[in-house]
Amino acid sequence: MLTFHSEDTKQRRPRIELDGGRFVTPHECPERVDMVIDRVRKIGLGEIRAPRAYGLEPILAVHDHGYVAFLEHAWDEWGAAGLEGEPIPSIWPARRLRGDRIPNSIEGRIGYYALAAETTLCARTFAAAQVSKDIALSALDHVVQTGEPAFGLCRPPGHHAAIDQYGGYCFFNNAAIAAQRALQGGMGKVAILDIDFHHGNGTQDIFYARDDVLFLSLHGDPRQEFPYFLGFADETGRGKGEGFNVNYPLLGGTDYAVWANALEDALRRVRAYRPELLIVSLGVDTFELDPISSFKLKSDDYLDCGRRLKALGIPTTFLLEGGYAVEEIGINVVNVLTGFEGS
Amino acid sequence: MLTFHSEDTKQRRPRIELDGGRFVTPHECPERVDMVIDRVRKIGLGEIRAPRAYGLEPILAVHDHGYVAFLEHAWDEWGAAGLEGEPIPSIWPARRLRGDRIPNSIEGRIGYYALAAETTLCARTFAAAQVSKDIALSALDHVVQTGEPAFGLCRPPGHHAAIDQYGGYCFFNNAAIAAQRALQGGMGKVAILDIDFHHGNGTQDIFYARDDVLFLSLHGDPRQEFPYFLGFADETGRGKGEGFNVNYPLLGGTDYAVWANALEDALRRVRAYRPELLIVSLGVDTFELDPISSFKLKSDDYLDCGRRLKALGIPTTFLLEGGYAVEEIGINVVNVLTGFEGS
Ligand SMILES: [Zn+2]
Ligand SMILES: [Zn+2]
Repeated sequence: MLTFHSEDTKQRRPRIELDGGRFVTPHECPERVDMVIDRVRKIGLGEIRAPRAYGLEPILAVHDHGYVAFLEHAWDEWGAAGLEGEPIPSIWPARRLRGDRIPNSIEGRIGYYALAAETTLCARTFAAAQVSKDIALSALDHVVQTGEPAFGLCRPPGHHAAIDQYGGYCFFNNAAIAAQRALQGGMGKVAILDIDFHHGNGTQDIFYARDDVLFLSLHGDPRQEFPYFLGFADETGRGKGEGFNVNYPLLGGTDYAVWANALEDALRRVRAYRPELLIVSLGVDTFELDPISSFKLKSDDYLDCGRRLKALGIPTTFLLEGGYAVEEIGINVVNVLTGFEGS
Repeated sequence: MLTFHSEDTKQRRPRIELDGGRFVTPHECPERVDMVIDRVRKIGLGEIRAPRAYGLEPILAVHDHGYVAFLEHAWDEWGAAGLEGEPIPSIWPARRLRGDRIPNSIEGRIGYYALAAETTLCARTFAAAQVSKDIALSALDHVVQTGEPAFGLCRPPGHHAAIDQYGGYCFFNNAAIAAQRALQGGMGKVAILDIDFHHGNGTQDIFYARDDVLFLSLHGDPRQEFPYFLGFADETGRGKGEGFNVNYPLLGGTDYAVWANALEDALRRVRAYRPELLIVSLGVDTFELDPISSFKLKSDDYLDCGRRLKALGIPTTFLLEGGYAVEEIGINVVNVLTGFEGS
């Protein structure tokens, strides 16, 4: 399987993450990329290619223009305001406040556009997020052109990024941007299957009222897990999109037997939808040793997961999302891909 | 003028405040209380009395029961979850997320109930906030019983605390709790004048649909200043409360001449309302040296402010809100009170 990769994703190097009332070393770190590409090389998954540059237009096809402009300039504006820490919001349009006014000040605007506060908007974030999107689109184009699967080694991840919100380590929604390009290229129906531990709130948000993208997400129950305020089973779509959003919230401690049951239900729905393309939001923070998650999947389980995805018989683009057990991220991600390859 | 004071307000001793992407020493610190009470003693403002205990009932008259229970147990639950930092939210029901589900996990719940993230829920916060409310109610009762003015040296402050939200250093809305008690005691109309630098979003929230409390706030324009997402001039009340909420957003750099113009307009409206009681949310972060604000009031201006308030001729309860130029907070607060006394 072809892998799309760029060292430029490592330009984003946050120094801090807000976690449990402390600053910790960021879980979403450049070393994740090294571990995955090393494993791709070690087992000889296939050719590794650099992405081509797609510019801003595919981003603006799913994200708000003001949001993209905000991300482009936030780091500079933060510094210009004399703020010395890494950009983190300390207030936001909470319940009981207004969400219809975008503040002038960078401290207000960062809260307006933030989904959460663990993720800093450090230097080169915008550049790295652009490259991540280029990787996703390069993988997408390869799959569309050849029918063969491809893996986009995206970083930063994308599935928490909503129409006009960043957070959960995500800035541009790589999976949504890729799906939108496939549709604009002539496809009629695309399915996005999100197997990251966390709910893909951003992807759900972007396609919630549409029937040309079937979105399915297996994830930690939001009553217990990030992002807490979206990802419930009763979120099934809106208007024309009714029935095209499927959430599988699963309790902490979920093992592969339980998880694979939910996966099979999701795959059954994908088959029934008959999409021309499957995009897999591939997070491996479902792993038993993941430091911020609570499922109990083991490394070998990812091989089986890959085999089940292959059985769909649909052209498939894999895009990296989360996975924070850095030592094992390469093994787990590549196990899904080799399981899919049948090797 | 009588002052109500308790050393127990100093039980709340947060170690950190999230500010500009860094942890700084909290601006809202116990030393504020020392500076004010020292000045009260030094100039001989009048007798200093301890508050009596009023329990939870007056709080529950304006705040949500679930919110109060959350505040009571948050510190213990945070520790029980193994979280080692001071309790700070890192996610919340942002735009595009659901505000109708309260998470089970403490990390989710702290975000549900938070207005902002600068304010930690450290040990003894609930106890200190209870004492602060007792001080407010003791001052209120004295004014109601005697017609004489009184000063409640409240800490933590209250005006940002909404029906079910804490933040901006506030937990229980002392001014709202006092106003509600006055009304329940038989008064028909109460005015709350908020002269803190920041918009009194919590007080506005609590009385927004009511006509028995006239709320007026002079504050930094929310396009530029905390709380950013409330405090605009077009917020005039809802339903029966239409016309009983008055906001005066003022630009950074506002000096006393401009500020006093807005004050006179507010006082004119108070007179027209003919309240039986005036509660002043007395913040002095309008001071030119305040570290987190942008108005340009000078210490002598507070004397004049006090004189103008006195001219209303309405029984008046002063309750301390903000003011973070610690060295001068005593002088500035007590200048308002001595201006009012005519001394
Ligand atoms: Zn994840
Ligand atoms: Zn203030």
